[in-house]
Amino acid sequence: MEIEEIEVKDLDPQVFVEQKIAEIASLVGSGLAVNALSGGVDSSTVTMLGHKALGERLKTYFIDHGLMREGEPKKIVALFNEIGVPVEIVDAKAAFFDALKGVGDPEEKREAITQAFYKDVFGELVKESGATHLLQGTNYTDIEETVAGVKRQHNILEQLGIDPEKEYGYKVIEPLIRLRKPAVREVAKALGLSEEIHNRPPFPGPALAARVIGEVTWERVETVRKATGIVEEELSNTGAFQYLAILHEDMVTGVRSGKRDYGFQVEVRCWDSQDAKTGSPTRLPYEILERLAERITTEVPGVVSVTYNITKKPPSTIEAV
Amino acid sequence: MEIEEIEVKDLDPQVFVEQKIAEIASLVGSGLAVNALSGGVDSSTVTMLGHKALGERLKTYFIDHGLMREGEPKKIVALFNEIGVPVEIVDAKAAFFDALKGVGDPEEKREAITQAFYKDVFGELVKESGATHLLQGTNYTDIEETVAGVKRQHNILEQLGIDPEKEYGYKVIEPLIRLRKPAVREVAKALGLSEEIHNRPPFPGPALAARVIGEVTWERVETVRKATGIVEEELSNTGAFQYLAILHEDMVTGVRSGKRDYGFQVEVRCWDSQDAKTGSPTRLPYEILERLAERITTEVPGVVSVTYNITKKPPSTIEAV
Repeated sequence: MEIEEIEVKDLDPQVFVEQKIAEIASLVGSGLAVNALSGGVDSSTVTMLGHKALGERLKTYFIDHGLMREGEPKKIVALFNEIGVPVEIVDAKAAFFDALKGVGDPEEKREAITQAFYKDVFGELVKESGATHLLQGTNYTDIEETVAGVKRQHNILEQLGIDPEKEYGYKVIEPLIRLRKPAVREVAKALGLSEEIHNRPPFPGPALAARVIGEVTWERVETVRKATGIVEEELSNTGAFQYLAILHEDMVTGVRSGKRDYGFQVEVRCWDSQDAKTGSPTRLPYEILERLAERITTEVPGVVSVTYNITKKPPSTIEAV
Repeated sequence: MEIEEIEVKDLDPQVFVEQKIAEIASLVGSGLAVNALSGGVDSSTVTMLGHKALGERLKTYFIDHGLMREGEPKKIVALFNEIGVPVEIVDAKAAFFDALKGVGDPEEKREAITQAFYKDVFGELVKESGATHLLQGTNYTDIEETVAGVKRQHNILEQLGIDPEKEYGYKVIEPLIRLRKPAVREVAKALGLSEEIHNRPPFPGPALAARVIGEVTWERVETVRKATGIVEEELSNTGAFQYLAILHEDMVTGVRSGKRDYGFQVEVRCWDSQDAKTGSPTRLPYEILERLAERITTEVPGVVSVTYNITKKPPSTIEAV
């Protein structure tokens, strides 16, 4: 790999911020840039860097693909509006759910999302806006995992031999490519982003599509969205690195009011980790595990069984898809 | 339900044993009886009752359907030979795996096993032996769950409107039908069966076929058989009511030696319960959970992820299929 990591211990966040602002301004020149804000720490940091470098010549979109957490689009947009950064919500649900129809294999799912994102939705937005550049929050771990063949990250193009200018009509700028998550959080802090943003638990690129095993339909995303809400409510104060709910495709036998109820299973994962490279299941107290199971089987229609993942990474990965 | 339960507190095991021996002797008369011994406490108890009632006029078979634990057929037969009860092993692997080919739905799976067991395999054995009666270990919980529509137990016939004499050519005697598991264990003890038998953790009628979600193939049974061996080794001294490994059909992303490894997930369940009617996940220490995950992902080929079920029954059931 030719890109060299900047470790937290070697990072001066203020200097890094000034350098990146200058670099973005110089690369975009008198052009226009666009970027997609998802609310994660990576895209939030890139939004702030771009905003400081380009002001009104940066157009920030929140792509509402319908795969976000409950209430997320409005909440994130409000957070950024408060600090003077305009963000436009783009309703792209149809494009994404069409692209995901009938797709069960994890790598094909990620590919479908990449295509819907870069080609269909962003291709159009860039054409409309006349932008010359796309800013995005690719980080060092994304590159590393994709190059190593662990998992294809949706935001990786060049390293897979894709020339975005030729394929999609715009250049890509990746200011965070030499940083892992902990370093990105330091930069976010230096940019004045609130605790809620700079300490936000990681969320996968393909969003809730990565939390559904098998085909991603609107109903199945609704199911995992509800379970995700419960898991985040119950585990947000545990100090864990990441916590998530996965909807399985396998169905299992359950029982309700004395009758057989063939239903869904939700898997909960909660990770202790420094950098997502390796991880261990958090040793959550059984009171919490039992409350999670109780709430998910009561509040999420169709779910009769809940499991907790007890495998380390490796051989597991953080997400299942 | 017309059958009335005899609770442990109302049971005199010695008196029950004497009554049942007399009853079996009188029902079979001068005929011959057969029974299938699986090694579980129910069929073991019935074998002893039948042996004491009929002596050589009881023919006991161990149906080796290939769905047993590792080494089980030989071990069980040896245990019974030691106490003077002859048992014949019948190799019925082909009949069962043929019947299970392409069957994914849990209820169809149970139906396929019922048919292979009663019609194909036992139908033949009864014809060959000239038996007039089949002794079997149906208990009160089996009846109750099937009648309530929770789960079809493989050994339920009459309550589903099946007349075994008409359908299969023999009468069925069910000496344990008024007892739940704890009461059966008392009877087993009164019959002098060893701790290993009378304290044996419950094992489902469809055996490891109930521990495979989706199609049951030889390879998939081998996988869950290995995982079951590990779970039983690690959890046998926990005092839990029942513990089991389930092979999922869903595949998940893992990582081995830095490369993506798309593999299997095994779910572990371990129950605190009195009578299987209701249950709670045992609060196993995390050291044990982590060792289970470590051993299963290392020793069972193809498995990259292990979960622990945290749901109560209800709404879960003890088994997933």
